[in-house]
This record gives sequence, structure tokens and C-alpha cells, in this order.
Amino acid sequence: MSRLWDKGAPLDQRVLRFTAGEDHGLDNRLVAYDVRASIAHAEMLHECGLLARAELDAIRDGLNELAAAHARGEWSVTLELEDGQTALETLLTQKIGTAGARLHAGRSRNDQVLTALRLYLRDAVEQLAEGAHHVAGVLDALASDQGAIALPGYTHMQQAMPSSVALWAQGFAAEIRDDIDGLRHSHRRINKNPLGSAAGYGTPNLPVQRERTRTKLAFPANHEPVTAVQLSRGKAEAEVLFQVTLLLQDLGRLASDLLLFYTREFGFVELPDAFTTGSSIMPQKRNPDVFELVRGRTATAQACLVEVLGITAKLPSGYQRDLQLIKAPLFRSIDIALESLDIMAAALPNVRFRPDRIRLDDDIHAAAEANELVAKEGIPFREAYKRVGAKVRRPE
Amino acid sequence: MSRLWDKGAPLDQRVLRFTAGEDHGLDNRLVAYDVRASIAHAEMLHECGLLARAELDAIRDGLNELAAAHARGEWSVTLELEDGQTALETLLTQKIGTAGARLHAGRSRNDQVLTALRLYLRDAVEQLAEGAHHVAGVLDALASDQGAIALPGYTHMQQAMPSSVALWAQGFAAEIRDDIDGLRHSHRRINKNPLGSAAGYGTPNLPVQRERTRTKLAFPANHEPVTAVQLSRGKAEAEVLFQVTLLLQDLGRLASDLLLFYTREFGFVELPDAFTTGSSIMPQKRNPDVFELVRGRTATAQACLVEVLGITAKLPSGYQRDLQLIKAPLFRSIDIALESLDIMAAALPNVRFRPDRIRLDDDIHAAAEANELVAKEGIPFREAYKRVGAKVRRPE
Amino acid sequence: MSRLWDKGAPLDQRVLRFTAGEDHGLDNRLVAYDVRASIAHAEMLHECGLLARAELDAIRDGLNELAAAHARGEWSVTLELEDGQTALETLLTQKIGTAGARLHAGRSRNDQVLTALRLYLRDAVEQLAEGAHHVAGVLDALASDQGAIALPGYTHMQQAMPSSVALWAQGFAAEIRDDIDGLRHSHRRINKNPLGSAAGYGTPNLPVQRERTRTKLAFPANHEPVTAVQLSRGKAEAEVLFQVTLLLQDLGRLASDLLLFYTREFGFVELPDAFTTGSSIMPQKRNPDVFELVRGRTATAQACLVEVLGITAKLPSGYQRDLQLIKAPLFRSIDIALESLDIMAAALPNVRFRPDRIRLDDDIHAAAEANELVAKEGIPFREAYKRVGAKVRRPE
Amino acid sequence: MSRLWDKGAPLDQRVLRFTAGEDHGLDNRLVAYDVRASIAHAEMLHECGLLARAELDAIRDGLNELAAAHARGEWSVTLELEDGQTALETLLTQKIGTAGARLHAGRSRNDQVLTALRLYLRDAVEQLAEGAHHVAGVLDALASDQGAIALPGYTHMQQAMPSSVALWAQGFAAEIRDDIDGLRHSHRRINKNPLGSAAGYGTPNLPVQRERTRTKLAFPANHEPVTAVQLSRGKAEAEVLFQVTLLLQDLGRLASDLLLFYTREFGFVELPDAFTTGSSIMPQKRNPDVFELVRGRTATAQACLVEVLGITAKLPSGYQRDLQLIKAPLFRSIDIALESLDIMAAALPNVRFRPDRIRLDDDIHAAAEANELVAKEGIPFREAYKRVGAKVRRPE
Repeated sequence: MSRLWDKGAPLDQRVLRFTAGEDHGLDNRLVAYDVRASIAHAEMLHECGLLARAELDAIRDGLNELAAAHARGEWSVTLELEDGQTALETLLTQKIGTAGARLHAGRSRNDQVLTALRLYLRDAVEQLAEGAHHVAGVLDALASDQGAIALPGYTHMQQAMPSSVALWAQGFAAEIRDDIDGLRHSHRRINKNPLGSAAGYGTPNLPVQRERTRTKLAFPANHEPVTAVQLSRGKAEAEVLFQVTLLLQDLGRLASDLLLFYTREFGFVELPDAFTTGSSIMPQKRNPDVFELVRGRTATAQACLVEVLGITAKLPSGYQRDLQLIKAPLFRSIDIALESLDIMAAALPNVRFRPDRIRLDDDIHAAAEANELVAKEGIPFREAYKRVGAKVRRPE
Repeated sequence: MSRLWDKGAPLDQRVLRFTAGEDHGLDNRLVAYDVRASIAHAEMLHECGLLARAELDAIRDGLNELAAAHARGEWSVTLELEDGQTALETLLTQKIGTAGARLHAGRSRNDQVLTALRLYLRDAVEQLAEGAHHVAGVLDALASDQGAIALPGYTHMQQAMPSSVALWAQGFAAEIRDDIDGLRHSHRRINKNPLGSAAGYGTPNLPVQRERTRTKLAFPANHEPVTAVQLSRGKAEAEVLFQVTLLLQDLGRLASDLLLFYTREFGFVELPDAFTTGSSIMPQKRNPDVFELVRGRTATAQACLVEVLGITAKLPSGYQRDLQLIKAPLFRSIDIALESLDIMAAALPNVRFRPDRIRLDDDIHAAAEANELVAKEGIPFREAYKRVGAKVRRPE
Repeated sequence: MSRLWDKGAPLDQRVLRFTAGEDHGLDNRLVAYDVRASIAHAEMLHECGLLARAELDAIRDGLNELAAAHARGEWSVTLELEDGQTALETLLTQKIGTAGARLHAGRSRNDQVLTALRLYLRDAVEQLAEGAHHVAGVLDALASDQGAIALPGYTHMQQAMPSSVALWAQGFAAEIRDDIDGLRHSHRRINKNPLGSAAGYGTPNLPVQRERTRTKLAFPANHEPVTAVQLSRGKAEAEVLFQVTLLLQDLGRLASDLLLFYTREFGFVELPDAFTTGSSIMPQKRNPDVFELVRGRTATAQACLVEVLGITAKLPSGYQRDLQLIKAPLFRSIDIALESLDIMAAALPNVRFRPDRIRLDDDIHAAAEANELVAKEGIPFREAYKRVGAKVRRPE
Repeated sequence: MSRLWDKGAPLDQRVLRFTAGEDHGLDNRLVAYDVRASIAHAEMLHECGLLARAELDAIRDGLNELAAAHARGEWSVTLELEDGQTALETLLTQKIGTAGARLHAGRSRNDQVLTALRLYLRDAVEQLAEGAHHVAGVLDALASDQGAIALPGYTHMQQAMPSSVALWAQGFAAEIRDDIDGLRHSHRRINKNPLGSAAGYGTPNLPVQRERTRTKLAFPANHEPVTAVQLSRGKAEAEVLFQVTLLLQDLGRLASDLLLFYTREFGFVELPDAFTTGSSIMPQKRNPDVFELVRGRTATAQACLVEVLGITAKLPSGYQRDLQLIKAPLFRSIDIALESLDIMAAALPNVRFRPDRIRLDDDIHAAAEANELVAKEGIPFREAYKRVGAKVRRPE
């Protein structure tokens, strides 16, 4: 299998393996997006007089067939095909002949990859938002089903003031919805058309019209100037990873609460057997592994963000091959987030709070009592605080 | 100096020093914001019948005088005063007596601190945006003054296609403007009124009206429900730090380019003596320290973000003292960003490109030539690529 | 396929998939180590009278056969087998019947996994050390072959004082050897026998002798007390990842130098075609992708370290399921380091310095001249510095 | 105040402030070490015939007096003095005249700074080791005083098997001692003499003898070759920060346990009032802030490590000004570690376990029972596990 840029020099297999890395595996999820972007590019070439009608038709049909075959699992990007972009062009040219060799006019792998990635990210962000929306809805349902159950409100992990299952669940639901907002704002960075920037310096001598691919691919704007495109690599990706990190932090803290509530000592919640696992030596145990893993993935999300920020850090401008390494942590974090949302949405409806076990300290109303003194007797809050304090203070 | 929550127990000085940490120093920048928020809170208490007119006046005047005295450097938050909130209440009560002891009704240090912090962040984000706007403007000026100078466009640090100082500078200007947008979007997370959430569980028995403080402090929304407020700690802060990180990454990459251009081997730019420093043993040297430090601060920005994300990670919900540690990395990163923007705005107008030294490879037009063959002869791009490639290929 | 801890409760497939995660895939590299440790454990059980001779023989033969079959690719750990430990016990019991069910006496999956992991880490560290040793040797060879070629010594990326290819290559060789030392010191944390700690609280009522498994597995010490074992999870792993990070940082900086030297503007080195790749649109280009990717992997190494540190951070003591997530970043970083060492060892002998292109500034001897004045004329260094400075100073 | 490298060019004050950064403040802790290294360097110069006896005496006396005056607080490094090295040379020359101007022969600020830093790090590591040793001793005392108190052993935060205060405390003590070992091994990277490497390329034309400064400063080895010295910047520092991170992670996890044990729901421990703080609105509360802050500093330690790794990542070899930024996170983490060790050593003896409140589940002996069946009846462990499991299993 010849690689597009192989001009005859013997290419050491180890170099290929090293430089291709995980790319072929990762690129499979971009194939459909690359096809869509390539068709838009071909249509633009046709409209600009650089591709005959018949050639466009052949390219469009060929690409659509390749996408369908890929979706059916009939082929996938392999090491020999090197990466998704090379794979598509190679297979297309095998299929339709010379017209395939016309497709790369006016674009480079740099803008081609980035376009596919941005189209993918648009979808991924939407999926993440939907997953998070589902979890927030499940928390609402929990608040409405079990919300009336009293719960201590904690500060410093100490019982502080009265709260409820409703307040607890709604607090998380509100923050998760805030994360959805954050995710959706990342569209701002994603949604700029890279096509036409080519390797980062435009397409001299070709009458390429970026506005046409922009419209076809529903990008609100072209990414301008062309030099900004590669300079921006990693930024939209980092933005998505950052918003995912906040979302997974919120899920992780929700899990931390539940792990605390599920201890024998708290005993505030029951979990169904289907959501706990056994021990290899302690037959009595039912372990809340799902919540532990959700908590642990907080660290994975952060690390993926750190990796992407580290890849682009301090690089001179212009495309650099380092940027290829962004995909792995990007996909890893998105996948983990989708799985965590999915499992939380399934687990939360099964959490049953146990009012029989939840006990609020007598002292938990101290602040409310002090407030009452202020409201009824008109004394300063500090005086009320001291008066109530004297009453509730545990003896040394 | 008695601390507000000191109920007589002997408090080990080491514990005080350890728990207060750097707080007193850091809190000085929050004093003015705390005064503003405390006055809004006091006005609300008055409007709800919890504070007499005269008391409100005394509080307002007292706080304004304290703020002014603080601004004049007449007092500052010290270890003995513990933290900014304790300091203000202590000094106010010393000044105006019993009315001061009424101020804390209906709020906790938790919502008090957070309100001051958010008011500060609103200003900080605006300052950062202005600083970045200034740098972008300086890049525009550079593009307009020296933009016509030809520059190689690089990929893989290799000369790739023709570019220009204009394209180079405008690429960075565009991305920095994108960062400004990112920064301003962080207002979404900052701009929610925490007042009235108290310790995180509201203010039972007190007719507190959150809507009133919200309006007075120009927050577009109340942060609801009360349990979400402390759960959100670190999120708006992390968002600001993330956007700052992207901004400092862009500045760092700009610095990387300039450091490359300033090498004797490239020799593309000259820097004035005022922006370089000497060596302690090599008398001939002029070193571009400013750009090295801007590049290095990329790492500091990332680390501050990592620190804040790490502080909140996996914590059970409800206020925890760990959250106090957020302020140090938050302020550190903001300060570094402001300084870096300031120095870059001063340095960039002094960068002089040297057309006499900038040499574009003959081969740099190869892609344009291939494009021309496509456009003029109508051959497929791959064929044009091979034809030009055969011509320009360096002999083995 | 029944899971060991499945006591009849219906186990939701999504929970299995979520909790198993990537484990089955990752555990394949631990199978041989687990077999070795399991045989040592079985021998100990036999020596302590808990396993008959025939049972031990059956277990040993069965495990050895399973290991051989696994090595031949005849089976692998799959999602249905859940993880490597469950897989081995299940397959063994299918193979040899009831004796297999005796193997888990006196151990838990917690100490079982950790033992296999530590045996693996011992080998991995040795492999990394050898790979690094090879690269250092290649640098020595480069110093001996091309070492006499003069090279500018840089500070601040500016020519500072005369250096040579020998000094340049030997500097990196020395630091890589230092990294090998660092790696080998990580054995200190790895080399403690976990067996006998079971779930972290020992094996009450069973006369288990840790000293015997310690000897058999060549651990210099037992990990004591039993509660320290799980508390230490992630620490030896982080130590290895940290040392790998320093190693990859050194490789990354070596790559940075070469990328600089390979620019057309420096032109200090040539690379063979086999180690460069082409461009999809610029037919003239040969890109140094290998070195870019080695530079980029600096970030991956750091991120893996951050992930492991984040996973264990702030967890209450005792085994937690979060710890399972350590394996993925651990293996990822080790693999990347091995690949990077391998490719650098192959690439470096092909780097050819070009004395015709390397030009040292006239001023580069200024410090040596000042030194000479000090040595010959006995004047203070500061005076010599000023005198030479006046001579070499570029006019404003 | 003239700066050493100021050759008359007007130096913009903003550049000075930006480049000096926090250096003057940070360098104060290095003054005594710099004096010690400078005296060793001067003695070597004298022994090599580059400094007269009288000059050496003047330098030694002058430096010792400056060090003493600095220790008494009579002067400190200020922005005007720029940094510690410039400050010392300037003040010395003011004090003793021309001999001071001879001191810099054969060294650069690069090796000077690094030598002072390494001498400091040797002491800092020792202080950290002593602080950690003290905490481990306090845990031993706790084990000996209260060790007999039964404690549940947890896995997955669930009661798993019987443990004790002794096992709990000794587990942490063992791991902290392991961290001390790790810290002490970092001497390997610290303990190489940088003097004589000058700016990184040695001292041509000067008969400098590195072996003499090596002996005087008790470095086991010279750092060879000279090019390795600056290449190693950040590595010893990162090693110390890494070991500190593991130590602070262990302290943070100890704190996490105590925070759990101190909840009202567990109620396993009591803390004296001196180690808790009050609430501003809830008069009944005593908060365990000390342990929360120790837990939170886990994140700071990690971030300091990330910062140092990020500063050196991907830099071309040779000194770069970025390296100056290492000091701030290095000192920050060391200080935080020392404070955390100090407060933990003070806090732990005050933790009182409450046997009246600690309740072990009946089921906690299930594994021991299964073990007993194995030992007494000789049945396979899996059968014993199932038999006990059937008995203890909670009804659905």
C-alpha cells in the first residue's frame, strides 16, 4: 500500500509504526466526518470550476459508499493505510480512478483532519450535553420521589444545618446543568471552518472559495486568517476537555457523597445488588465499585486536559506533528465521560435513601435558633450566636 | 485580638498560623469588594426590617471609611486579624459598636467570601480582556507597519509556503481575540449571586431577600439552589484559570517564535537593548529574557489550573476548608497573566523584522506551482504534486 | 461465565462493562506474572500444610499450561472473563477441578494483583533501563564519530561559548544515564512482597508464611505491616512514571535540539529520508516527524504521572476500586517510553552533522578572551569583562 | 544601583521588574549558601594562583560579614539588587573594593546559582526527612498508647476485616518512612558539583580545578560533562518535589481518614478544641480545619511538581531564562511540606480514639471464618467462602 507522500524513498517500517502510532485505530471514528467534509470540499471544487460534474458525482458516490461500507464494518483504517485521510484517498482512487486524485486540490491533510475533528466534536459535545441532561433529569426525579426526606447539611464534613434529599439532589442537578452550558459554549471555539487554510498558508493560485464549504458544513464563520487555524490546534479540544473535567468533577463529588452515605457508619442509602460487586475473599461484602470508578475518573479527565495543554505548550507556530497526539487524550476523555454519564443515569434511580437511618443532630438547628432570636428579639446576630452557643456547647 | 468564632478555648498559635496560611496577605485585594458586598447585604437587611436606618448608616459609613483607609494603606489584613472577613467585622465593631455585630445576620463567611471573590473576578476578567485587547492591537499595528515583509510559512519547523509578517502577526492577534472571548464567557460562571446561601443551606427563620442583593450587586441571577453555591466553588475560578492558560499558551508560542527568529541563525528580528539583558561572563551577549520568561509562564498558568482542579476534586459536597487554598493559585495566575500582557504590549512594538536577513527557500513555491498546474492544465492534483516533486526533490 | 464473587444476584451487563473497563485488555500483560506469583503462593500453601502435594502439582501444571497457551495466543483475557485474576482462577478450575478452588486461600485479589504488577514492573524497569542504556551508547558513538565537529554552545538560544558535537552528545548521554540510575532506584519501592497482606488486613486463622513467598519471588523484603500494602498503591507506580517522565523530558529536549538544528536556517544536521516523511501538498518537503513525536510525548508522560497521582490523592486508606484505574496510564507511559527509546536509538546514528554549515560567531570567544586577560594580566574579571565587552559590543 | 551586566544601555524599569520577578524575595533563603559556595570558589581561585592570599582573606571576611548581617536582618535582597548573586557581588565590591571584582573569574551566574540551590536542597531534604521522621514517631506513639483499640479494616470504604488503631497508625508510619527513604535518595541527583561548568561550557583559558570546590563543598562527584549541568536543571528539583508529593499524599490520606473518623456518624475520634475552629454562624460547630488543609495541600504539592516539569519541558539544551521560574514552586512545596509535617506532629498526639463509639460489624469476621473452615475442615477456600456467604448474606 503506497502512502500519499511516499516519493520512492525506502521507508523504515519502524518509523511508520512509530509515526502512525495509534492513529489508524483512532481515525475510525472520524471516517464519516471526513467523508462529509470531503464531499463539501469536492462540491466547492466543482462550483469553482476545478472539478467536472461527473468527477464530483463519482467522488460523492465513492465516498458515500466507502462511508457506508465502513459503517458496516467492511473495512477499517489499518496501520498499512496509515491514517484516516490517507486511507480514504487511497481507497477512493482505487474505486473511482483518476477523479480521486483530484480531490486533494486546494486542501492539505492539516485542514482536512481538523475539519473532520471539528465536525466530530460538534456531535460529541451534543452527546455529552444530552448525557448530562439525562443525569440532571434523574436527579430531579430523585428530588421529586425522595426529596422530602430530611438530610443533614454538612460543612467541613460536620453536620451543620438541616437540609433534605431534594436540596442535595437539586444542588448537583443545577451544577450539572451549568456544566452543560459550559460544554455548549465550547461550540464557539469548535465552530469555525478550517477548510481553505490548507497547510496553514492558504491555497495560492487556486480559486478556492471558503465561504462555500463554510455554508455546506454549517460553520457560522470561516477561521481567519489562515495562519490562525493551525495556531488554534488544541484550543477547542482543550476547551471541550476542560468542560468535561468540570462535569466529571461534579459527578465524582456526587459519587464521593454517595460513597460516604453508603458506609455502614452513615448508612443513609441502600444500593441494589446489581450496582454493587462482591469481594474475592469476604463473602459478606457488597462494594459500591461503580461510584468508586466514577470518582476515580476525575483524575483521568484532568490528565487528558493536562496532556493536551502540554502537547501544544511552547511550540513555535505552524503545524507540527506533535499535534497528532491530541486525538488520543481527547477521545479518551470524551468516552469516559459518556460512559460515566450513562452509568450514573442508570445507578441514581436505584439509590434509596433510608429515613430510618438518617439522624440529624439536635444542635443542627443552632443557627436557625440564633436567627430566630435576631428576628424576634431584635438582638444583634453576634449576641444571638453567643447565647445559643453557650447553650449547645459540648462540655470540654 | 479575638477571633469571631473563638469561644474561649485556648487556640494554639501554630494552628492559627497554619490555618490562616497566606490568607491575610491574599485577602487584601478583596477588602474593597467585601465592603461593597457587605453594604449591599446591610441595605437588604434594612429593607427587610432587620436593621434600623441609623444602624445601616453607621455600617455603611464605617465600611466606606475602612475601605478608604485600607486603600490609603493605613491598615491591612494581618495574621492577627486572621482573614479579610474577620478583619472587617472586628474593625467595624470597634468603630461603630453594636451595629457592627448585627451585620452578619443572614450570611455566613462562606457566601460572604464567595461574593467578594466573584466581584473581584468580574473586574479581573475585564482587566485581562483589556490587557489582551491591547496586545492584539499592538500585533495589528505590527502587521500594518511591517506586514509587507515576506516571511516563510513553516510546518514541522521547515519552510513550507510563503507567508508574511502580516499573516504571522494577524494569526496571533486573531487567536488572542478568541481568548478574550473565552475569558468574557467565564462571566457566565462568575455572575451568580451567592448571598443568601449562607453556609450553603440558606437562612432559616430570617426573611432574607436574595433578589435585593442580586440587584444591588448587578448579578444577572441568584445562584440556586443554595446547595449549588458551595458545590460550585472552584468552578468559576477554574474557568478563569483555564481561559488564562489558553491566553498564556498563545503568548508563550508567540514568544517561542520570536526566540527562534532572534537566534543568530535565523536572524529575522532585532530587539532593542532595553528589552534584552546581559550575561555575567559573556560580554558580547544580549539575551531575550523577556520572551523566555513569557514562554516559561505557560507552565505556571497550567500549574495554577491543575492546583485548583486538584483542590476540589473528589471532595464531598458542602463547604470544606480546603477551598480556602483556591485563592493563592487563582491570584497568582491572574497576576502573571496581567504582567505578561503588559510586558508583551511594551515589547512587541520594539520588534524589528529584518528583510535583509529573511530568505525564502526556492522550493517554497512548490505547492503553489502544483496548484497552478491544476488550475491551468486541469490535471489532477496528485499528478501535479508528483510532477513538481520530481523537479524540486533534493538529490539523495 | 460466572464471576468469582457473583453470589446469584443478577448483574447488570452495563455495570460489568463499566467496572471491568479496559481491564481485560490490560491484564493480558500480567498473566505470566500472575502465574508465577500464583505458583509461589501455591507452593507456600503446600509447605504450610494447606495444599496436598498432588493438588500443588495440578495447580502448577495447570497454571504453567495456561501461561504457555496464553503466550501462544490461544486465549486472552476477555470481558466475559472480567479480569486477569478471575480469568486464571476460572480457567484453572475448569481444567483441574476442585484443587483450583483451593488456590485463593490466604490471598485476596488485592495482594494478588499487586504482586503480579510488581513482578511486571521489575521487568519493565529493566527493559526501560536497557533501552535508555542503548540510546546513551548511541550518543557515545555519535560523540566518538563526529565529536570533533565544532558546535556553538548556546545560552538563551544565543551563541554563547564554543562547544562541540562531543560535548553536546555527551551531555545528553550523561543525563540519560542519570535517568537510568533514577529508574533503577525505583526498585526500592517496587521490591516489597505484598503476598500475605490479602485484602490489606492479613489472613486470620490461616498459618500463612509470607517469608516463603518472599524468597520464592526474590523480594528483598515483605511489605509490612499489612495495612501499608494497599496504602502504598500508586506510589511505586508513580515513582516509575516520574522517572520515565524525566527520561522522556531528556529525550524530548534532545529532539528539540535536533528539530532546531534541522531547520533550513540552522542547517546543522542532515537526516536520511527513511527518518523523515513527506507532505500531502508540498512536494519539496521532508519532515522530521519522528523527533516531533518524541518531543510531543513529553506531555503524555507527564499526563500519565498526573493521572496516577490524581487517582490516589485524598482517598481514605484501604483498598478502593479507583486503584484499578492506575494500570492504564502506567502501561501507556511505559510503552511510549520503550517505543521512543527504540526509535531514538535507530534515528540518532543517522544524524549527520554538517561542518560546512555550522558557523560560530566571532564573538563567541569573548568569555575566553576575558579569562585570558585575567590569567595573563592578573586584572580582575570584571575589568577584563568590561574591556572585552567594549571591543565586541555591537554598535547601537 | 548598577547591575553587573548593565553595559550602559538604558534599561526599562518594567523589564527589570518583569525579569527579576519574585527573585529578590526568593533569593534571601539562598544567601548563606551562596556565601559558602563563593568562599569555596575563592579558595580554589587562590589555590590555582588566580587570587592573592590577601584578596582571598578580604573576600572571605567580607562574605562572612555580609552573611551574618543578612542573618541579622540588616539587609535583604531587593528589587534594586535584582537577585541574590548580583546583590552579593555588588555589596562585596562596595565593602572590599577591587578584590570583589575578582571573585567572578571562572564561574557564571549559571553555576553559581545552581550550587547555592543544591546546597540549600541538601539541607531542605534533611529538614523534610526529620519532619517526616517526627510524624512517623508520633504515629508509633499513637500505636503504642491506643493501639489495642479495635478498628474496622475498610476496603471500598466498607467494613471488611478486623483491624486496630495499631495497624492503622503503623501502616501510615511505614509509608511515611518509605517517603523519607525516597527523599534521601534524591540526594543522588542533588549531590553533584556544578562549579566549574560556568555558563555550561566550562572555563577556557582559566586553570580552574573543579575537584577542589567539590571537596570543599562535600559533593561526592563533579557534574560531568559541563554540558550536562544546565541540561539537568529542574531534574533534582523535580525529584525532590515528586518525593514531597508522595509524602504529602500520604499525609493527605491520613487526614482523609481522620476527617471520616471525626464525622458525627463515625464518631471514632475526638479532637481537642485547640485543633478545631469555630463557625461564623453555627455556634455548635467545631471544625477540623487543620486536617482539611493538610488534605487540600495534596493538590498544591502536585501542582508545584507539574509546574517544574512544565518549565523545562521541550526546551532546547543550554541555559534558558525560563529556568529561573523553578525556584518559586520548589520553595513553595518545600515550605508547605514542612508546615504540614509540623502541624501533623502537633495534632496527632491529640487525637483520641473512642472505643465506646467504634463498632465492628458482626459480619466482619466472615473471611476469618472461611479461613478457619479451610484450616480445620480442609475444604477448598471457594467452598468455605460460599458456605459463610450463605450465612451472612443480607436478605434481598
